[in-house]
Amino acid sequence: MNKLSFNKTKKFKMHNIQGVLFSTGSCGLKEKNKKDLVIIQLDKNSKTSAVFTNSKTIAEPVKWSKKNINNDIRAIVVNSGNANALTGKKGYDSIKKYINIIAKKINCSVKNILVASTGVIGEQLDYKKINAIVPELLEKSKKKCCSWNSFFQSIMTTDTVPKFASKKIKFGKETVFISGIAKGSGMIHPNMGTLLAFIFTDANIPKNIINKILLDGIQHSFNSITIDGDTSTNDSVFFTATCKKKNVSINSFKNNKYKKFVKQFNNLLLDLAKQIVKDGEGAKKIIKISVKNAKTYLIAKNIALSVANSLLVKTLFNSNELNFGRIFMAIGKSNEIIDQEKISFSLGNHLLAKNGELLIKNNANKIKKLMNKKELSLEINLNNGKSQSTVYTCDLTNEYIKINTNYLT
Amino acid sequence: MNKLSFNKTKKFKMHNIQGVLFSTGSCGLKEKNKKDLVIIQLDKNSKTSAVFTNSKTIAEPVKWSKKNINNDIRAIVVNSGNANALTGKKGYDSIKKYINIIAKKINCSVKNILVASTGVIGEQLDYKKINAIVPELLEKSKKKCCSWNSFFQSIMTTDTVPKFASKKIKFGKETVFISGIAKGSGMIHPNMGTLLAFIFTDANIPKNIINKILLDGIQHSFNSITIDGDTSTNDSVFFTATCKKKNVSINSFKNNKYKKFVKQFNNLLLDLAKQIVKDGEGAKKIIKISVKNAKTYLIAKNIALSVANSLLVKTLFNSNELNFGRIFMAIGKSNEIIDQEKISFSLGNHLLAKNGELLIKNNANKIKKLMNKKELSLEINLNNGKSQSTVYTCDLTNEYIKINTNYLT
Repeated sequence: MNKLSFNKTKKFKMHNIQGVLFSTGSCGLKEKNKKDLVIIQLDKNSKTSAVFTNSKTIAEPVKWSKKNINNDIRAIVVNSGNANALTGKKGYDSIKKYINIIAKKINCSVKNILVASTGVIGEQLDYKKINAIVPELLEKSKKKCCSWNSFFQSIMTTDTVPKFASKKIKFGKETVFISGIAKGSGMIHPNMGTLLAFIFTDANIPKNIINKILLDGIQHSFNSITIDGDTSTNDSVFFTATCKKKNVSINSFKNNKYKKFVKQFNNLLLDLAKQIVKDGEGAKKIIKISVKNAKTYLIAKNIALSVANSLLVKTLFNSNELNFGRIFMAIGKSNEIIDQEKISFSLGNHLLAKNGELLIKNNANKIKKLMNKKELSLEINLNNGKSQSTVYTCDLTNEYIKINTNYLT
Repeated sequence: MNKLSFNKTKKFKMHNIQGVLFSTGSCGLKEKNKKDLVIIQLDKNSKTSAVFTNSKTIAEPVKWSKKNINNDIRAIVVNSGNANALTGKKGYDSIKKYINIIAKKINCSVKNILVASTGVIGEQLDYKKINAIVPELLEKSKKKCCSWNSFFQSIMTTDTVPKFASKKIKFGKETVFISGIAKGSGMIHPNMGTLLAFIFTDANIPKNIINKILLDGIQHSFNSITIDGDTSTNDSVFFTATCKKKNVSINSFKNNKYKKFVKQFNNLLLDLAKQIVKDGEGAKKIIKISVKNAKTYLIAKNIALSVANSLLVKTLFNSNELNFGRIFMAIGKSNEIIDQEKISFSLGNHLLAKNGELLIKNNANKIKKLMNKKELSLEINLNNGKSQSTVYTCDLTNEYIKINTNYLT
């Protein structure tokens, strides 16, 4: 495996969140006794928000969770090894079968439980496998909450490294924490969530405010990354405030606490999002693509995504070749109205093109060297307005083809 | 090279078209004395139509040809080895420099000459190299028209097989011919032409009618294929009627001759377009994707393209795995309004999913065997309307990554 371990999980602490309890286990949805189930229990006064895939062919758990998100959420049940998508009514009914037993055990209605699934599409989910281990799992969690690592292992599929982020924020004498975990490395494209992510905080935030914080937050994080342009049927991002820190009440869009919290929350989301790109299937490089001075934000974003999703650009970054005409091509195929004679772009500190003309001459060797770096920054200047957008993508390698040609074996 | 030779160039005859003369040569734009230049001379009464890339960053030769397409065209000059894109004003001026000498030699204005280029983007075109061989080329063509094979060699880049098609049509006692040639195997996506193609006929057709024939024709051929979703800066399709067969006058959209001609013309275009997909960079399979019973043609086409461009679908077809949930995913990410509970799809004669639920059971082995075929047909039934669309794509293989990671070397 050539993949680098971008994550430095040892260097920072994942803060536990008061009011959140998770229990993990292996029920046989994945082979070889790998962990494949996590039950997240949330304390009574928690507020939970979520955003779901924009796909028009959504998985059964997404249907369930969309329907119940406005209830008081007491648990989120997540499995890997089976996406429970393309499974029709039978797949939907299987959800009720396995959350029913959990609802009874934790003394709530099935309507207070959300679900998320990830794995192969098109296989019926054997709910009996889940039911068989639920009592043991819930019993275990009475004694001890499972580790974040164990949580990650239970939701990972083709991920090669865990994606964690955690923040500690001081509000006067009180401290609140935000901790987030995400999985995903294929079918990643910004039409909402494009992955599974779970973020928890112990701050005291009402439902309408966590809804806004989450919706705003994903725009420049999970909605600004792309690995393969494919949007999953199952993508879901959950955000729960357990409200345990009563004194840190973020109850208005205008107060300073809101701003302070949101800043850290957004950083955490971007951190998780970038971890996902770095672990993109087969990826060896992460490329930050900023489009500046566009007429509108949407034009900037569409052009950034057009470049980020171009197979020819992505294979270019798999090399150290100076074939930057491909960037020009990918800007043009976005179909946005631009003035091609005004376009400039640069990689790192090197100006590659100015006024629609390529410039590389004496600095070719320096640029080649730069191309070998694991993190690259491409800036495209349209010189045509005042808006900008940044997205993150990865290179396209043989490893991607290998992973996705032999996904089931 | 694992690529199959899909073309059966020996099995059919490329008809020469009276009134069309081409001369080819090697001027040093490609390495190792490879052919890289063709001058197509067209007789005085010829009518020429063309369609160009929809890209917003177009190459300099496309700018020139767009500007001059309404003039009487006497020559088309095509080079490979350099796309003359991202070259700015200097690139545009270089065109005038090399067609000036040709215009003088064949006794017309530069405005009667169109140009097309293909190759690397972002390098200035050294027009002196072209000028140096023009006299010899035109002298040679006085004696003999070059072969279609020689024409193809002069315009090819990463193509591995030539793309030819030719038709002979009887109109009473008179016979007319259509012959077409195309190049392209990367940056292929339908936003117009997506390649270079040249089609000639000796039929007698006025300008307004060849315009319509070409525009209509590309919709279901060159605009219905995709290899990598990337749209070239240089794509151009040219269609010339030399009008030598005075008796076959296709001068009305309504007469029977028109219908008969157009039918053959469209078949020829689809034939060329399919040859391009089959020779897609790294491709080992061609997949016909038909979306049926959609609410509108555009919905059908967008869904077909969404599936055809999905990296996960394309890598699936590089395997013989039965991971058909990816097709469901790719239908959903199109963002078209559909009823997911009504979707069915089948591969060849095998129904894979019905009413939004996967069906594969006893026929798994048969489907695996089918997946090994070089030509596959996927039919998606939305059961939601009466419109349909068909597109062609290829699988995504290691070979594609290899070609585009080492394009310049």
